Amino acid sequence: MRSIVTGGAGFIGSHLIDRLVARGDEVLVLDNLSSGKAEFLAHHTSQVTHIDVDITDFEAMSPHFKGVDVVYHFAANPDIRLGTQITDTDLKQGTLATYNVVESMRIHNVPTIMFASSSVVYGENAPMPTPENHGPCMPISLYGASKSAGESLVSSWVGTFGLQGYIFRFANIIGDRGTHGVIFDFIHKLKRNPSELEVLGDGRQEKSYMEVGDCVDAILHVMETESEPLNLFNLGSHDTCSVRRIAEIVVEETGYTDAAIVYTGGSRGWAGDIPRAMLGIDKMLATGFNVKYNSEDAVRHTARVLIEEIGLEN
Amino acid sequence: MRSIVTGGAGFIGSHLIDRLVARGDEVLVLDNLSSGKAEFLAHHTSQVTHIDVDITDFEAMSPHFKGVDVVYHFAANPDIRLGTQITDTDLKQGTLATYNVVESMRIHNVPTIMFASSSVVYGENAPMPTPENHGPCMPISLYGASKSAGESLVSSWVGTFGLQGYIFRFANIIGDRGTHGVIFDFIHKLKRNPSELEVLGDGRQEKSYMEVGDCVDAILHVMETESEPLNLFNLGSHDTCSVRRIAEIVVEETGYTDAAIVYTGGSRGWAGDIPRAMLGIDKMLATGFNVKYNSEDAVRHTARVLIEEIGLEN
Repeated sequence: MRSIVTGGAGFIGSHLIDRLVARGDEVLVLDNLSSGKAEFLAHHTSQVTHIDVDITDFEAMSPHFKGVDVVYHFAANPDIRLGTQITDTDLKQGTLATYNVVESMRIHNVPTIMFASSSVVYGENAPMPTPENHGPCMPISLYGASKSAGESLVSSWVGTFGLQGYIFRFANIIGDRGTHGVIFDFIHKLKRNPSELEVLGDGRQEKSYMEVGDCVDAILHVMETESEPLNLFNLGSHDTCSVRRIAEIVVEETGYTDAAIVYTGGSRGWAGDIPRAMLGIDKMLATGFNVKYNSEDAVRHTARVLIEEIGLEN
Repeated sequence: MRSIVTGGAGFIGSHLIDRLVARGDEVLVLDNLSSGKAEFLAHHTSQVTHIDVDITDFEAMSPHFKGVDVVYHFAANPDIRLGTQITDTDLKQGTLATYNVVESMRIHNVPTIMFASSSVVYGENAPMPTPENHGPCMPISLYGASKSAGESLVSSWVGTFGLQGYIFRFANIIGDRGTHGVIFDFIHKLKRNPSELEVLGDGRQEKSYMEVGDCVDAILHVMETESEPLNLFNLGSHDTCSVRRIAEIVVEETGYTDAAIVYTGGSRGWAGDIPRAMLGIDKMLATGFNVKYNSEDAVRHTARVLIEEIGLEN
């Protein structure tokens, strides 16, 4: 099997590549290292080829799709908050990049795509847990809008050109090699100032977290068991964890137990943040897959491995 | 009230402008006349100003948003089938143009947008009638993908930047000044060859049709009665009409009653066509608005006025 992983030097993509290599795939990584890291791929040998290319550049990226069997499309701006400041990042690195991917697949007859979408496509006030058939999906962040647009591009290429699509709406994915997100931020804040941890919002934001190993195992399991033209699955765990609890866990795991946890207040971390989110995972469970970690376990595990990776000593 | 109507020289936009002028609005029309026609605006005087600008050109279009109160965004590629041949038309004229619109509104503090979306965002196999909360929305045409992406851009600008949004998912809108669509096509085919009418598909495609006057009245009614930050409404009529019945009505109205109606066969008109579609309109009805025409009446009325506009004599 010859696979492309866009954003393969990133957090989730690099974990997926570990699994693909283990099962014998030949992997082409399209990643311009804007947020991914070459070191996440450094342990691989000839099975993995890294192409340093910007997938927003159609002419440069498209030729690599020749002879490929499946595309795992992870590449995107990873910073949801950035959309509040710069409004065309998600449009270019999300929507336009996804167009470039599906169009390159059409041109080179690549049959199957996996698209990394997100729980944020559901927007606010969705029922918790949110099932895949919730509607209308009205994302409130520019990142969410680009993921929703990406889903529609995939579904239209399925409907018009016969592509096969797997769309996964991820809960908050956390684990080793994480390069952003609340746990990552808390560790860096405590590293800078071990006596205080500032938390954006009132700490009551509450979301479901999924460990990255569970996430990539779920992806490959669903792609092996399901074979519709278009397959849409939420991927998450069975429960949620509050930001307040995450702050406590990170403080415990750093050992900076004297740190004062200070809340900036307000129900949202930032404009476009969804305060409460929990995905319905019955459809995933029905495929025979279950997670190893629930949210709090995943948070604690991630805090430990990221403290190891980041290091607390300056 | 100072309004912008993008695509205001087009079919639905020009009808809306007639209503806006009647109520005293000052209207700025942004339209490059790629499918709109200057003659649809020719009866207006100083209340309507036409700017010949391509809204995919951000630098050229954005300055016109200064001092505007509300934007009605209709501009788009009107030809759904084109996406099967050219894959970036809907991306550019739909998704990117809508980004340009909402971003210009953010920059110039324009508070309110109306976005013209479509029943095709629901994709295939939706329940009939389809309510606004149907999910997941998985469009199968590239046009549908661009409308879905446009909705998400609007909702994210609402959620992140405080825009107020009215999103309308239109049934098939028909009536005078129509420049495309099945009735328009049938009349032109019969004009070329009065002895035969070729119908794409098996004629069993069945959709709901809404008369354009009903459509623009519904838009203005909903915008007057509803005031949520984001307002999503299907606009349609109470029933459907089959393509077979449309063909019969057009043949009757042309008077070419000897014409043989020939079906190319297959359940779809083209790849990406949705064979059956009917919008749930309970939410629209609950605002106190009702349509004057049902589907078949709208079809017959449209056949008459388009035969008048197009002319059957060569």
